[in-house]
Amino acid sequence: MTMAEKNCSYFIDVLASKAPVPGGGGAAAMGGAIGMALSNMVGNLTVGKKKYADVEDEVKSLLEQGSQIIEELKKLVDRDAEVFEPLSKAYGLPKDTPEEAAYKEKVMEACSIEACSVPMEIMRKAYAGIKIHERMGRIGTKLAISDVGCGVVFLKAALISGQLNVLINLGAIKNNTFVEETKREMEQLLKEGSRIADETLALVIEKVS
Amino acid sequence: MTMAEKNCSYFIDVLASKAPVPGGGGAAAMGGAIGMALSNMVGNLTVGKKKYADVEDEVKSLLEQGSQIIEELKKLVDRDAEVFEPLSKAYGLPKDTPEEAAYKEKVMEACSIEACSVPMEIMRKAYAGIKIHERMGRIGTKLAISDVGCGVVFLKAALISGQLNVLINLGAIKNNTFVEETKREMEQLLKEGSRIADETLALVIEKVS
Repeated sequence: MTMAEKNCSYFIDVLASKAPVPGGGGAAAMGGAIGMALSNMVGNLTVGKKKYADVEDEVKSLLEQGSQIIEELKKLVDRDAEVFEPLSKAYGLPKDTPEEAAYKEKVMEACSIEACSVPMEIMRKAYAGIKIHERMGRIGTKLAISDVGCGVVFLKAALISGQLNVLINLGAIKNNTFVEETKREMEQLLKEGSRIADETLALVIEKVS
Repeated sequence: MTMAEKNCSYFIDVLASKAPVPGGGGAAAMGGAIGMALSNMVGNLTVGKKKYADVEDEVKSLLEQGSQIIEELKKLVDRDAEVFEPLSKAYGLPKDTPEEAAYKEKVMEACSIEACSVPMEIMRKAYAGIKIHERMGRIGTKLAISDVGCGVVFLKAALISGQLNVLINLGAIKNNTFVEETKREMEQLLKEGSRIADETLALVIEKVS
């Protein structure tokens, strides 16, 4: 059974427990999926309304993209737990001899690179979700504009949580090229995503105030 | 069955649908509970560790407060749906005669004040949760410091989502004293809560970078 198939209380309880997973990464993916759902709610309230007939095709396309991101984020909750297991085993490897130490370093590096890929993917999905909210806030039904604001702040939270989880994994990686390339993409997603999310929120606040 | 007892996929699907509830308010409460769970995870990883024996009592107290906030936020998911129903019925009341119009206005006012109380309560819980994260970030185990950052950004998202839902309900309320008092508390919670959340996140980023 996937984590998304468990009940919400169970997810929150196991998150709050000292069990190693789910942690911040799983919370980011699940919280991001909740945010993404709100743009889709606005889209579903827009489709079929005469007043919005002109934008119906584009709204339908945003809805499809949104549904795909929701499914991907739900999968990333489980994926984050899967990549943590080999990493936590690697931490426990002995390093008493030079051979053991070299082997441990090699395994740690490989597991950390793998573990890093999940929060990076969460950031990419959160960024894409923020862009969808930006557009939905402009063309979707005005009756549910506040929900666009709620969705975008939760996706921004997922974006920042992704960043934190990328950073902790990068700390154990020695491959400089990988570290630099990952940091560059991370910073780009964070900067652009935060800017678009903040602008979208400002627009919503202006409209509901 | 409460919303928190439903599975996560179901919650996300019904949120994404055009069903009137759950909407941004329910998402704020559920997303806030996910954020709150992360400080408790850090607390549960701290308790029983020799290195943190000095702060054990305070961590246990933060854990208790955190658990209470999680339970209250879960209840607020359902409460938000409950107060929406009479409000949506009030919107449908006729106003063809002066008597009908006066009655509709009276009912709309009462339902909007009731509907406003839920996002205000979400804001109060999110604010309290942010303060708990601030403290947990200072005294909890350093091994899970990134999770404090993730938790606090999701609680800030809940705080802002609460604000948006307060604002849309205030629009329908004519009682000036109520509007002014609510706005004052809302702005105070938003300003202080955002400041503490941002400071806590900055501290976490500094430690994990």
